[in-house]
Amino acid sequence: MSLVISSKWSRISGGISTPSGFKASGVHAGLKLSNAPDLALILAPQDAVCAGTFTSSSVRAACVDLCKQRLDCTGGKARAILINSGHANACTGDRGLIDSLRATEAIANQLGLLQEEVLICSTGVIGELIPMQKLIAGIDPLLKDLADDGGTNAANAILTTDLIKKQIAIEAFLGGRRVRIGGMAKGSGMIHPDMATMLAFLSCDVGLSADVWSQMIKRVTNLSFNAITVDGDTSTNDSFIAFAAGDQLDQKYLYDLELGLVEVTQYLAKAIARDGEGSNCLIEVKIEGSNSSENAIKIARTIASSSLVKTAINGMDPNWGRIVAALGRSGVDVDLKEVSLWIGPYQLMKKGEPAWFSKKEVSAYIKNRMNAEYLDEDTVSIRLIIGEGNASGLGWGCDLSEQYVHINAEYTT
Amino acid sequence: MSLVISSKWSRISGGISTPSGFKASGVHAGLKLSNAPDLALILAPQDAVCAGTFTSSSVRAACVDLCKQRLDCTGGKARAILINSGHANACTGDRGLIDSLRATEAIANQLGLLQEEVLICSTGVIGELIPMQKLIAGIDPLLKDLADDGGTNAANAILTTDLIKKQIAIEAFLGGRRVRIGGMAKGSGMIHPDMATMLAFLSCDVGLSADVWSQMIKRVTNLSFNAITVDGDTSTNDSFIAFAAGDQLDQKYLYDLELGLVEVTQYLAKAIARDGEGSNCLIEVKIEGSNSSENAIKIARTIASSSLVKTAINGMDPNWGRIVAALGRSGVDVDLKEVSLWIGPYQLMKKGEPAWFSKKEVSAYIKNRMNAEYLDEDTVSIRLIIGEGNASGLGWGCDLSEQYVHINAEYTT
Repeated sequence: MSLVISSKWSRISGGISTPSGFKASGVHAGLKLSNAPDLALILAPQDAVCAGTFTSSSVRAACVDLCKQRLDCTGGKARAILINSGHANACTGDRGLIDSLRATEAIANQLGLLQEEVLICSTGVIGELIPMQKLIAGIDPLLKDLADDGGTNAANAILTTDLIKKQIAIEAFLGGRRVRIGGMAKGSGMIHPDMATMLAFLSCDVGLSADVWSQMIKRVTNLSFNAITVDGDTSTNDSFIAFAAGDQLDQKYLYDLELGLVEVTQYLAKAIARDGEGSNCLIEVKIEGSNSSENAIKIARTIASSSLVKTAINGMDPNWGRIVAALGRSGVDVDLKEVSLWIGPYQLMKKGEPAWFSKKEVSAYIKNRMNAEYLDEDTVSIRLIIGEGNASGLGWGCDLSEQYVHINAEYTT
Repeated sequence: MSLVISSKWSRISGGISTPSGFKASGVHAGLKLSNAPDLALILAPQDAVCAGTFTSSSVRAACVDLCKQRLDCTGGKARAILINSGHANACTGDRGLIDSLRATEAIANQLGLLQEEVLICSTGVIGELIPMQKLIAGIDPLLKDLADDGGTNAANAILTTDLIKKQIAIEAFLGGRRVRIGGMAKGSGMIHPDMATMLAFLSCDVGLSADVWSQMIKRVTNLSFNAITVDGDTSTNDSFIAFAAGDQLDQKYLYDLELGLVEVTQYLAKAIARDGEGSNCLIEVKIEGSNSSENAIKIARTIASSSLVKTAINGMDPNWGRIVAALGRSGVDVDLKEVSLWIGPYQLMKKGEPAWFSKKEVSAYIKNRMNAEYLDEDTVSIRLIIGEGNASGLGWGCDLSEQYVHINAEYTT
């Protein structure tokens, strides 16, 4: 899978409900104390296939296990996802599971679906129960609002402490037909990282077998959500769920389709990384010359998650020793004598030894990125060539500021 | 290996040169810009055996590889270790290796040893060469000062940004004979974590086969240095080297000896963890009811290294959801329904569900530890029972403060 984005795809306005046949909605059901929307629904067309990847944590919310079980037992046949924000419903015992079952049963009954076709995702505080009366009361307005332009409302309703909503839609003409992919996500706003679940959803109006779809989603997840890191902590509720439904696509366009999936998932993943609370820039680490793309991503992610690298970027300090030290502990064997390193256009290390560079210029480069006015200009690029092979990989993170610690140490008692 | 410390051992004053037959020294050779001592030497008695554990990083300083090779090719027969502070001599190419060889050659010539019997450890800035002229000029005064009470000078000379020196000596009478163990370490003061090498040295006046010694050292390393974490970053130069030399000990006391080694290495490891810059307390995580002590330590270390747990402790916030989330991503499978959790004497979670507790009281407990006047009172205890078996394990870390980020983001250009 190349990392190059096909030019066949172009950005269009919209999000999760933009692909043909999909509907979504988002309302305020009163689950959150604020007036923010807190309940969302995605409805996929009949015959949709659905694939999900979920947190690798052994401490999982009941709703995560429920989603997995239902996708397994139906062979990837889901129709709807209910998402509540404000309460993670993790570490809530049997009652947590009963509440998840009750919520999906209510949706299934109203929509005339099988219970097994309805999934539920929760995000918010760990160890607190969902106010179920409010959630159940919110279902009627939620169903009433279901619309093919409801994606933006849904994207807003899944946020917790995120600063901005995260959605995207793209379009391409493959073999004469229009194909659309939509997506939305929420990340770790990190104001209260106990609420820092990553949730992402994707829709696509192409018909595929559940098996082909599930393999595709697994591959693109590794190139996107599995390549970002905010603070190394994994949530109890992390989930990425993707629907595909519509007319079949000629086999020869499957590769183009996958490039579109990579574009959408990488966009959402980067949006999550750059929305880390207290962060000022996106750190993009590119590893070239690796013996496999898995190893390249592993190294990129280790560097992007190093506290020392993140604080150095925050301090506009071209401290390449920290980057090399993170490379060294990534678990991938490298020959230091073959390693070269750049920050932006500046080479800091050449074949394992210090290269001459102007600290002032590199520092100014980082500073410009930290103070960027526009979203895509805020990226600090770190690039390493490691001389082991021809594979490459990308990883993303954000800088670590005093503000992050201040916010996360907040005295809640 | 039990974690209980045998009462046969008692603390005595001194450090690395306190066991019978060992000598040490430390001088200011002008390697550092400050007037601090920066060159140390340890001399072990003839027939000493030596075991070392080194950084798992694939980016290693040449001196680390040199130590490993020499211990391998001599079968654990080293006599002396030269330690320079201020320059890590990592990422310095062939010149770095040549300098390490030259320094050990000078020591070997002066002491009448084989070059292979001399080791060298370096700690300091990555990517800068050692001022060799100054180092070589420092060897004469260093040798002149070698003494059996030189341990404290050596312990001072290996520090970089550490706030306090770290040494210990203990003594026991085993089978009618006096046995002493001494140790010293330097940690990650974290003021400039590019200088954050962990170096630790141990001496013991008991004669053992190199093989038995090396196995013992491997085991105690896992219970001590491998169980601490400051910020998850691994240095290019981390090393722990241990000598044993003297009369043989009756086999039946080997277990007691190992308990003494655990006491010394855990003392040094905890001293490193609590000296993290900007930190106010030591976090001790105890996992009980695990199916193996390896898994227990793995979980303990994951919790102790979580940025979210560390910031919560810094904020005196009994935010147990973050502790459980870290448990979940540790890579060890647990059944959440069997997990109970305490901070100090307060139970926060019982068999997977929230327990009632006074946030105010738990917060006050953490606050007292953060403001402790005496070293041993600064420990915040986190305890989990995970209900999988009978094994237990300890891990240590420190809180994460705004000061840490401030210091590490320092603008060096």
